[in-house]
Amino acid sequence: MIKPRTPPGVMELLPRDQIAFQRMLDTIRRTFEGFGFLPVETPVFELSDVLLTKSGGETERQVYFVQSTGALEKESERLPELALRFDLTVPLARYVAEHERELAFPFRRYQMQRVYRGERAQRGRFREFYQCDIDVIGKDALSPRHDAEIPAVIHAVFKALGIGDFTIQMNHRKLLRGFFEGLGIEGVRQDLVLRELDKLDKRGADAVRDTLLGEDFGLAPEAADRLLAFSRVRSRDHDDALAKLAELGPGTPSFEQGRDELCAALERLRAMGVPESDYAINLSIARGLDYYTGMVYETVLDAHPQIGSICSGGRYDDLAGHYTKSKLPGVGISIGLTRLFWQLREAGLVDTADSSVDVLVALLDDAGLDHALALSQRLRAAGLNVETQLEPRKLAKQLQYADRAGIRFVVIRGEDEATRGAVAVKDLRRGEQFEAAEDELGRTLLVEREQLRAQG
Amino acid sequence: MIKPRTPPGVMELLPRDQIAFQRMLDTIRRTFEGFGFLPVETPVFELSDVLLTKSGGETERQVYFVQSTGALEKESERLPELALRFDLTVPLARYVAEHERELAFPFRRYQMQRVYRGERAQRGRFREFYQCDIDVIGKDALSPRHDAEIPAVIHAVFKALGIGDFTIQMNHRKLLRGFFEGLGIEGVRQDLVLRELDKLDKRGADAVRDTLLGEDFGLAPEAADRLLAFSRVRSRDHDDALAKLAELGPGTPSFEQGRDELCAALERLRAMGVPESDYAINLSIARGLDYYTGMVYETVLDAHPQIGSICSGGRYDDLAGHYTKSKLPGVGISIGLTRLFWQLREAGLVDTADSSVDVLVALLDDAGLDHALALSQRLRAAGLNVETQLEPRKLAKQLQYADRAGIRFVVIRGEDEATRGAVAVKDLRRGEQFEAAEDELGRTLLVEREQLRAQG
Repeated sequence: MIKPRTPPGVMELLPRDQIAFQRMLDTIRRTFEGFGFLPVETPVFELSDVLLTKSGGETERQVYFVQSTGALEKESERLPELALRFDLTVPLARYVAEHERELAFPFRRYQMQRVYRGERAQRGRFREFYQCDIDVIGKDALSPRHDAEIPAVIHAVFKALGIGDFTIQMNHRKLLRGFFEGLGIEGVRQDLVLRELDKLDKRGADAVRDTLLGEDFGLAPEAADRLLAFSRVRSRDHDDALAKLAELGPGTPSFEQGRDELCAALERLRAMGVPESDYAINLSIARGLDYYTGMVYETVLDAHPQIGSICSGGRYDDLAGHYTKSKLPGVGISIGLTRLFWQLREAGLVDTADSSVDVLVALLDDAGLDHALALSQRLRAAGLNVETQLEPRKLAKQLQYADRAGIRFVVIRGEDEATRGAVAVKDLRRGEQFEAAEDELGRTLLVEREQLRAQG
Repeated sequence: MIKPRTPPGVMELLPRDQIAFQRMLDTIRRTFEGFGFLPVETPVFELSDVLLTKSGGETERQVYFVQSTGALEKESERLPELALRFDLTVPLARYVAEHERELAFPFRRYQMQRVYRGERAQRGRFREFYQCDIDVIGKDALSPRHDAEIPAVIHAVFKALGIGDFTIQMNHRKLLRGFFEGLGIEGVRQDLVLRELDKLDKRGADAVRDTLLGEDFGLAPEAADRLLAFSRVRSRDHDDALAKLAELGPGTPSFEQGRDELCAALERLRAMGVPESDYAINLSIARGLDYYTGMVYETVLDAHPQIGSICSGGRYDDLAGHYTKSKLPGVGISIGLTRLFWQLREAGLVDTADSSVDVLVALLDDAGLDHALALSQRLRAAGLNVETQLEPRKLAKQLQYADRAGIRFVVIRGEDEATRGAVAVKDLRRGEQFEAAEDELGRTLLVEREQLRAQG
C-alpha cells in the first residue's frame, strides 16, 4: 500500500475550492477576451536549448528537466532534451518568432497556464502555479498608446474579481533612468541603483541610503537624498499625478520622454473611464528585470498591502531577440493566480464556492426513477446543472447531502404534487420551500439563480 | 540565434484554431457540469512512487520523469522523484484516496487536463494531449444505475459538439466473461480471448479465428464460431437490442447479470430521452484493460468509422486499491480531445474559428482616439469582445485587418455619423453596412451576434 500524497509545493484543491478558483480563471479569461486578446496555449515543455537561451542565472537553476524512461536508461551526460516552462514569456517569445509570418501584428495574446519552478519548499511558495498573462506585441514598433490599454485591462479584471479596492501603480523606466542620468549615474551603475530601489520595501529607506553612499555606489549624500525623495513620489488622484510629474522639473531627453509617455498613459486611462481612485504613479517602482524599458506596473490591494503586487508587468523593447532578427517590442502583465488565490484564502477574502450543481432531483422510490431522469434532462436543457439521486434514500438524507455539497435546490416529487403536475422545491440557500409546475420548473429555477447572482 | 521550434509530438495551435479548440473544451465542460460533475485539477507531476504503483508494463516505459537542476547535478542512481501523469485515472485514484474523508460519495468529478506519454514520434501520435474525463466513484458500492448516466453524458457532449451522427456502442464484461464460461473458457484464458476480441477490427475475423484455433488457445472450431458469431451482434434500434440480447438464450450467473445490467442501462437511457438511433449494443467491444469489470463503452462517428472510438470507458470494481483499503467502485469515460481535434481537422470536420473578437473599433484620426477608447469600453460593458485601433490608418487597411483576423464588425465613426450621435457598422460576415445610434450599438451588435449563433 502506498500513501497517497502530492509532491510538496503544489496547490491541489477540493472541488468547492476548485470551483471558486475556476470562477476566477473564467472571469480573467472573459475580461482578457473582452479587450480583444486571443488565446494561446503552448506545450508544458520546451526543448531545453530553446528554453534556456540565457546561460546561468537564478531562473535556470530552478528549471525542471524532463526525460522519458528510455532517455534515463541511456544515462546520457548531456542536458535532458526537454524542460518545463518556468514562465509564459519565453514560450511567447518562441511562439511569436516561430509563427511570425502567420500572425497579425500588433499581436494581442492571452495565455493562462501553469508554470514550474524548482523553488525551495516553503509555505506560500509554489513549484507549480498558474500565470495569467496578456501581451501586445508589435513588429518593428508598437504605439505607446498600448501602455494605457494594459492598466485598463488590469482594472477590469480586478473589478470583475471583486476582491476589494486596489490601486494600479505606474512608473516609467525612461523617467527613472533619465533621473539617474541627471544625478550623474550612468551605464551599469543605473542597473545597480534600479535593483536597490526595488529593495526599498523590504530593506527600508535607511538601509538603501547606506548602500547608495557605500563604496560600491559612492553617491554623494545630496544625490542619494534626491533619489530617495524621488522614489517617495506617490499621487492621490489624476490631477495630483500630473502635477507631481510636472513638479519634477526639466530633465534629460530620456527623462522627458518617460514623463510624456506616463502623462499620455494617464490621460488615455481616464478617457477609458478608469476611476482615478484606482490608479496612481509610484516612482519607487522599478521592476527588477532588465527586460523592461518603458512603463512598469504593479497592482496592490489597498486593504492588504502586505500581499505585495498582485499583477505586474511593463513595456519591453524586444521580446524574442534570441529567436528572430525581427524586432518585437511589447507590453504586458502577468497575474500569478495560484499564489493570489492562496493569499486571498489566507486573508479570508475568498470563500469556498457553492457547488456548480444547481439542483438535486430527489428520488423517493424506485417507481419514480424514470420520471426523475427525464425531469433532470429537461432541467439540463433549460441550462441548469443537475444531479439526479439514482437510488431512493430517506428524504432527510438527500437534503443533508445537498446541504453539505452546497447544492441550492432540491426538487421533490411527492404523490400530492405529482397529481397536480407539480413538484416541491426546497431552496436551501434561502431556507424556503415552494411548489412549481413541472413545465415551468426550469425557468423558475433559472430566474431564482439569476436573482441571487445579481444580488452578488 | 536559436531556431524557435516545439518538441515533436505536441499540438500547438494558431489563435483561431486555439479558439476552435477552446470552444470544444468549453462545450465539454458545460455538459459535464450540466450532469452534476464537479471540477478537479491535479498537479502535472506526481511523486514517482505514487504514480508508478505497477511495476513494468508499456505505460511505465512511456513515462516522463522530472528532475530539478539541483537533482540532476547530484547524478543520483535512484529513479527521479517526480513523473508527469500519463492519464487522469491514476491521479484520480490518488486524489480520492488522499481526500477520501473530505469527499461526498458517490463522488462525481470531471477533469480536463493534459497528460504525457513518451510515444514514438509519429504523425497523429501525441506526447502531450488533453484528456476530458468523467467518473462517478462509490464508496463500498455504486448503483448500476450510474451505468446509464454515463452514455447519456456522452450523448449530450457529442450532440453539443455538433460533429455529426455518432453511435454509443455498449457491451458488458460480465456478459462476455459469462459467455466465455459457457464455452468452457475459464480463468486467465478469458483475458487472452478478450484481448483477441479487441483485435477483431484490426486483424479481421479470419485471423482471430486462426489464433483461437491455434495451440495457444486450442478452442474447438464450433466454440470459435460461436464466439465470432457472438462478437458480430450489433443492434439497429432499442427493441432490436433487447431482442438480440434475449436471443442469446440462457447462460451462467455472470452472463445473466451482465445481460440484466445491460438491458436496464438501455431502458434508463431511453428514459433519459437519448434517441435510440444514437446508441447500440456491440458485443465485440472488449476494452483491452483488465481494469473494467462491467459495462464498457465506445463511441464512433457514423460517417468516419476509421477514426475509431472517440470516447471510451467503462465500469470498474476498485479504483484505488494501491492507495487505500476502502473499496471504491466506479464508472467513467475519457475523451482524448487533442487527437480527436486533430482527426476532425484532417477529416475537414472542424474549421478555423472566427475570431473571439466581435468588434474592431476603427480609428480615422488622432482626434477620435479618446472617443474610440470610451466607445470600446461601453461595448465591453455590454458584453462584447472589442479591439480598439489605437493608431489611425487608412480605413481600407483596418477593414482588411479585421477581415483577415476573422473579426465580424468594424465600427466607424465618420464626421457625418458623429453629428447624428451614430456610427457606421461594417458587417464583414454578411457583407453589409448599416448605421446605428451609439447608445444602441452594444445591444444591436449583441442581437446580431446571437442571431448568427442561433442560425448555427
